[in-house]
Amino acid sequence: MRPVCFISDFGLADDFVGTCKLVVTSVAPDIRVVDLTHEVPSFGVEVGAEILQHATRYAPADAVYLAIVDPGVGTKRRAVALRASSGAIMVGPDNGLLLPAADSLGGVVEAVVLTEDRYHIHPVSNTFHGRDVFAPVAAHLASGVEISEVGENLEPNSLAKLRLPDAAETGDGAKLSTRIISIDRYGNARLSIMQEEAGFEYNATLTVDTGDGGMAVKYVDTFGSAKAGELILVPDSHWRLSLAINRGSAAHALGLKVGGRVRIQPPDGPEDARA
Amino acid sequence: MRPVCFISDFGLADDFVGTCKLVVTSVAPDIRVVDLTHEVPSFGVEVGAEILQHATRYAPADAVYLAIVDPGVGTKRRAVALRASSGAIMVGPDNGLLLPAADSLGGVVEAVVLTEDRYHIHPVSNTFHGRDVFAPVAAHLASGVEISEVGENLEPNSLAKLRLPDAAETGDGAKLSTRIISIDRYGNARLSIMQEEAGFEYNATLTVDTGDGGMAVKYVDTFGSAKAGELILVPDSHWRLSLAINRGSAAHALGLKVGGRVRIQPPDGPEDARA
Amino acid sequence: MRPVCFISDFGLADDFVGTCKLVVTSVAPDIRVVDLTHEVPSFGVEVGAEILQHATRYAPADAVYLAIVDPGVGTKRRAVALRASSGAIMVGPDNGLLLPAADSLGGVVEAVVLTEDRYHIHPVSNTFHGRDVFAPVAAHLASGVEISEVGENLEPNSLAKLRLPDAAETGDGAKLSTRIISIDRYGNARLSIMQEEAGFEYNATLTVDTGDGGMAVKYVDTFGSAKAGELILVPDSHWRLSLAINRGSAAHALGLKVGGRVRIQPPDGPEDARA
Repeated sequence: MRPVCFISDFGLADDFVGTCKLVVTSVAPDIRVVDLTHEVPSFGVEVGAEILQHATRYAPADAVYLAIVDPGVGTKRRAVALRASSGAIMVGPDNGLLLPAADSLGGVVEAVVLTEDRYHIHPVSNTFHGRDVFAPVAAHLASGVEISEVGENLEPNSLAKLRLPDAAETGDGAKLSTRIISIDRYGNARLSIMQEEAGFEYNATLTVDTGDGGMAVKYVDTFGSAKAGELILVPDSHWRLSLAINRGSAAHALGLKVGGRVRIQPPDGPEDARA
Repeated sequence: MRPVCFISDFGLADDFVGTCKLVVTSVAPDIRVVDLTHEVPSFGVEVGAEILQHATRYAPADAVYLAIVDPGVGTKRRAVALRASSGAIMVGPDNGLLLPAADSLGGVVEAVVLTEDRYHIHPVSNTFHGRDVFAPVAAHLASGVEISEVGENLEPNSLAKLRLPDAAETGDGAKLSTRIISIDRYGNARLSIMQEEAGFEYNATLTVDTGDGGMAVKYVDTFGSAKAGELILVPDSHWRLSLAINRGSAAHALGLKVGGRVRIQPPDGPEDARA
Repeated sequence: MRPVCFISDFGLADDFVGTCKLVVTSVAPDIRVVDLTHEVPSFGVEVGAEILQHATRYAPADAVYLAIVDPGVGTKRRAVALRASSGAIMVGPDNGLLLPAADSLGGVVEAVVLTEDRYHIHPVSNTFHGRDVFAPVAAHLASGVEISEVGENLEPNSLAKLRLPDAAETGDGAKLSTRIISIDRYGNARLSIMQEEAGFEYNATLTVDTGDGGMAVKYVDTFGSAKAGELILVPDSHWRLSLAINRGSAAHALGLKVGGRVRIQPPDGPEDARA
């Protein structure tokens, strides 16, 4: 039995997640389901794709990823399963959610449209393919069914692509321009630039502009290196730069929102920003 | 080992759910617990009963249902275990929570009051029978203990019944009168009428009155068939009619509340409403 | 395989908990992880310690406790694993979180600093030792690795201690002075005095002062013994006294907050309070 790594925007307030797990358990009682998170913002395909891609660094090599952020449910968007070069399998809607994770695992080597309805729960609803299509198919794949059994081959190049904000955009003259891709429960704002890509040195003082003009912000290696209440840039759990307040909420203090622009001026000017 | 399907109104903010699971794991470490949801509204016996009943469509046939929405804990209400005709077992308070599910699984064929305190955790608290009575009994039943071992027989007809709003009430002259039985995290309002029972045809325009007069509302097969922001009626995940706004919150926009009345006027008058 | 009992202040809104579980599953797919709660208030080491200590009453004897409430992550605070006299193991930061639980299980008989980095995930981040240090070490210990293998011995007496509010403080002349140590989702306020320690008799009327003067409050054995809307003192799920309103929220009605002082005047004066 392969483990199933389950991510969705269903939340836990309703029985959506629980019902999908009942379906998995009905297919094969011994499958281990690991909940990655079910609090992807509603219809947040980009946010979900970033979390799923990051999870591939930590998940078992033989994982089956069950990923459901599906604003197009009930329309003509395809339901798909992918096999990555690593052997991992991804099941979900063809809206770009799965592809960054598959790319991180060596790229898609096999892809199918989920047409074999003997692997679905009937009747198939128009609004909840998670329960009726994706969960049972993921369970069968975790149980050893081959991906070629659950649907018709499709050309991997035809899969819907998503423009993920994993690289900082330059612009605005002298500054590094980044985007807020998510805000965690502590109010830390995760930026669209990887720590490695920024290349800043710890303890440098940067100028950060979230829309109200520049503020001096120290780049520290960890929260513990800052004073309580201090605004900092810090590498976060996804190895991205994060704008944070130690033991406080940067989002609240600065009115930050997902999608907001954050401009960063390195100490020695933009020429050295990626040194 | 039979799987345990666990539903409650405990929420996840505290350690109630986790402690119950520790108890199950202490009885038998190999039991699989599937959380259906723990966000039933506090003391929402009706809402819990509806969710539990719906879950029986998707759960394994040999499931043990551990269901705890228990405003009467510590009073004389009985703690019970039921065996349904299907073989499934239900454990919880005798307040009507379990019966609709049991009915959907062929009816109760055996019922006991949980009097055998060697299957309980001691001391038994007055306020948390979930941990001290229901969870350990469910775990023992999942491990193979017979229902007749955990307590004294009771007459199934003596079990507390609940009036579940699963049928629309007619009334108010020409209109179909329904009730909002729950509101999900997206703000969709689930109504007290099953899709099959309403019998509307997709793409029909209905007149819906939530208390402020009638609005024209299209009945669609799925969210994807509506424009963003459009108010619709749509069959939901429990196969009920749901009043929704595509990519928005109907509850927020219309001020909907659980228990609220929603009157629906079919296109050709009420005579055809169930055609 | 020993079960892992997991508690943290990570919440479920992000992927922190899920990623830790992926790490555990990657180390050994058969480990059972039981979530105690992940909604410990941010940086609430005291609250977390109280919940963890209480959980030891119900967890399997061979449990590995993975406990992460870690405001000092990335600073010099030590990462540790402890073995209690009972055989249970605790993994987490050395900030006092683990010690009350270990004390309840017979005291610490072996303790190590987690210096063996072959049991960690690399690179080790500065901000997320839960994923990179604590979760993989807990998984290896659950799989049978000896505690002496994962780090260097440390003197148990050197472990950071926490002053836990598990005893009521006397003071203020004639009254018993307690503190609110947590508030649950129903608005019940858990006090810093155990039921046994208070020694009140059921149905006694006590005078309770939350800061606005005294109110007459009945001490009942269970919620069901009170009228709807009645303010009561009741033994709670952790065997502590709790200030509550039956089917209502005491916290909301009285403006209660964690850390707030609650003074209780027994019927016959303070001399009998612990009779």
